[in-house]
Amino acid sequence: MLEHGGRLRRAAAHYGIALGDWLDLSTGINPEAYPVPPIPLAAWQRLPEDDDGLEAAAASYYGSASLLPVAGSQAAIQALPGVLAELVSTHRPAPRVSLLAPSYAEHAQAWRAHGPALFAAEDADRAVARSDIVVLVQPNNPTGVQFERARLLAWHQQLAARGGWLVIDEAFIDPTPAASLAPLAGADGLVVLRSLGKFFGLAGARVGFVLAPAAVRERLAAKLGPWTVSGPARHVSRAALLDRAWQAHACRKLQAGGARLARVLGAAGLAPVHGPALFKWWPSTQAAALHAALARRGILTRLFDAPAALRFGLPREEADWQRFQHALHAALAEIGPSPALPVRR
Amino acid sequence: MLEHGGRLRRAAAHYGIALGDWLDLSTGINPEAYPVPPIPLAAWQRLPEDDDGLEAAAASYYGSASLLPVAGSQAAIQALPGVLAELVSTHRPAPRVSLLAPSYAEHAQAWRAHGPALFAAEDADRAVARSDIVVLVQPNNPTGVQFERARLLAWHQQLAARGGWLVIDEAFIDPTPAASLAPLAGADGLVVLRSLGKFFGLAGARVGFVLAPAAVRERLAAKLGPWTVSGPARHVSRAALLDRAWQAHACRKLQAGGARLARVLGAAGLAPVHGPALFKWWPSTQAAALHAALARRGILTRLFDAPAALRFGLPREEADWQRFQHALHAALAEIGPSPALPVRR
Repeated sequence: MLEHGGRLRRAAAHYGIALGDWLDLSTGINPEAYPVPPIPLAAWQRLPEDDDGLEAAAASYYGSASLLPVAGSQAAIQALPGVLAELVSTHRPAPRVSLLAPSYAEHAQAWRAHGPALFAAEDADRAVARSDIVVLVQPNNPTGVQFERARLLAWHQQLAARGGWLVIDEAFIDPTPAASLAPLAGADGLVVLRSLGKFFGLAGARVGFVLAPAAVRERLAAKLGPWTVSGPARHVSRAALLDRAWQAHACRKLQAGGARLARVLGAAGLAPVHGPALFKWWPSTQAAALHAALARRGILTRLFDAPAALRFGLPREEADWQRFQHALHAALAEIGPSPALPVRR
Repeated sequence: MLEHGGRLRRAAAHYGIALGDWLDLSTGINPEAYPVPPIPLAAWQRLPEDDDGLEAAAASYYGSASLLPVAGSQAAIQALPGVLAELVSTHRPAPRVSLLAPSYAEHAQAWRAHGPALFAAEDADRAVARSDIVVLVQPNNPTGVQFERARLLAWHQQLAARGGWLVIDEAFIDPTPAASLAPLAGADGLVVLRSLGKFFGLAGARVGFVLAPAAVRERLAAKLGPWTVSGPARHVSRAALLDRAWQAHACRKLQAGGARLARVLGAAGLAPVHGPALFKWWPSTQAAALHAALARRGILTRLFDAPAALRFGLPREEADWQRFQHALHAALAEIGPSPALPVRR
């Protein structure tokens, strides 16, 4: 398994700053999570049942009833390679799999037995042309790359026409719902992954959805078995998916937050900065130095190696924004003014 | 997938009795569930982390640290065949798999691609002798069969000696912890499945444990991926596994309840009746008739076909006990006195 989590705890130990004193911007999770409603005891005590309204709430939110609830999109990421490799129609001995890179590493991990080819965003057209299965994250995590909807539709057409599949992980798409391909779910050759972890801020609940034709959903369901999503998580998710007022408020708030984050980073001289509402991505040879300088100030960001880059999540309260802004300027002053300088001095 | 759940809803529709008016004895779940403590919001909002104390609490409760948390023992049941078939040392083209029958049907479903042989409890010694992998539920659901610990240990020795595996699903064993093989976990050739669904009454939480050597746990973890158990469920489970006072009280209460249920059934003339504290099993050609007669009185039991049998769970409150006892006598009077009579008259 890949390394995940525990970063805040390790940073606290490494920098000698108490756990409670950190501003954690290392995730792309909505800092204002959906407010958890009271959970009926029966949700804890009885096996979850399919007719509790979760699927209907999700169908209304995603714009398609061709969906399967899973225990976080991770569960689907793990199980999809086996299912799609079986379903793909190809005369070759094995399907040709291409993955956008850099991207969320769990996809490459899950497909590793299928010898996937990695492609850069600028080579996407060529990758689609030579593949049976194409997997991408949209908007991409961590680079923030977002393909035009028309291109995605064309790629889907190309792949479906030869019995192939386009897999789109839309974990960060909720603040811009019009960009989603979820309403097209059910079409042959298209799999869309959604999650309640990021936009709804319910990463601990482990709830996601696979939007795909019945053949994919049935095979996935057989592989994953019954009762994969806990009763309490089903209850909270149903409420969250139905709560249009909260969703509209969260969209506005996150779009404003994302724009503010881009401004704050830009005003500090960080460029180029990309990313959806929920996070921003700054590729730079100074990434490691800025990561450390911010950490010394109790602010945790997410550092990436290849390419060297920082990902910034959204601060929650005004005080957090102020703290971040001041720390960012102090940290940049400390590590030096020029991105052309080497990372360590 | 096998058919599960929804039985109460269907019975309510079929018998024209409102959902809330039923006494549901169709499961083997503790009717007095562990009281759910308040859940910290962070458990919903952040990805679950491994160092939250759940594993340590489970190690102390089960008597072994060779364990992996899973999203209910169902998740392990689904994934174990692939893992064990890979690990078994045999010179044959495929491992010989034997499953106790009748038993919890999900095991046979999960092993179906491996051509499992089914064996009756009385043929267990012979089945072990001719198998590489033996799967049994102990105490067995639904028949209540319970093998002596010494026999299980001998079977494990035999199987392990030739590179085979004994898989024991101990979902119903908690009220008699001395019978469990969990403390031996880590030994080659032994896999023990435990669940918080039955004894702790947390079936909706989807938490179970696989107790097994590292080779099994690592392969299972890779197959199932990270964050399989939700944060809220981890929080509740940790509390339940650490709460010795509640556990001791529940053991006493369930043992008394199980004994009372056996007495009530025996006094009504039902024989033979077997089963652990959490349920009783009555094989009879009259099973379907009694199931229907009880259902007409708003009491749901679980009907089995092969062999024809009823499984009774525990009533919760004194009023439920009284209602069950009266309904049982009335139902038996209605369907006729003699087990020798045909089921339908």
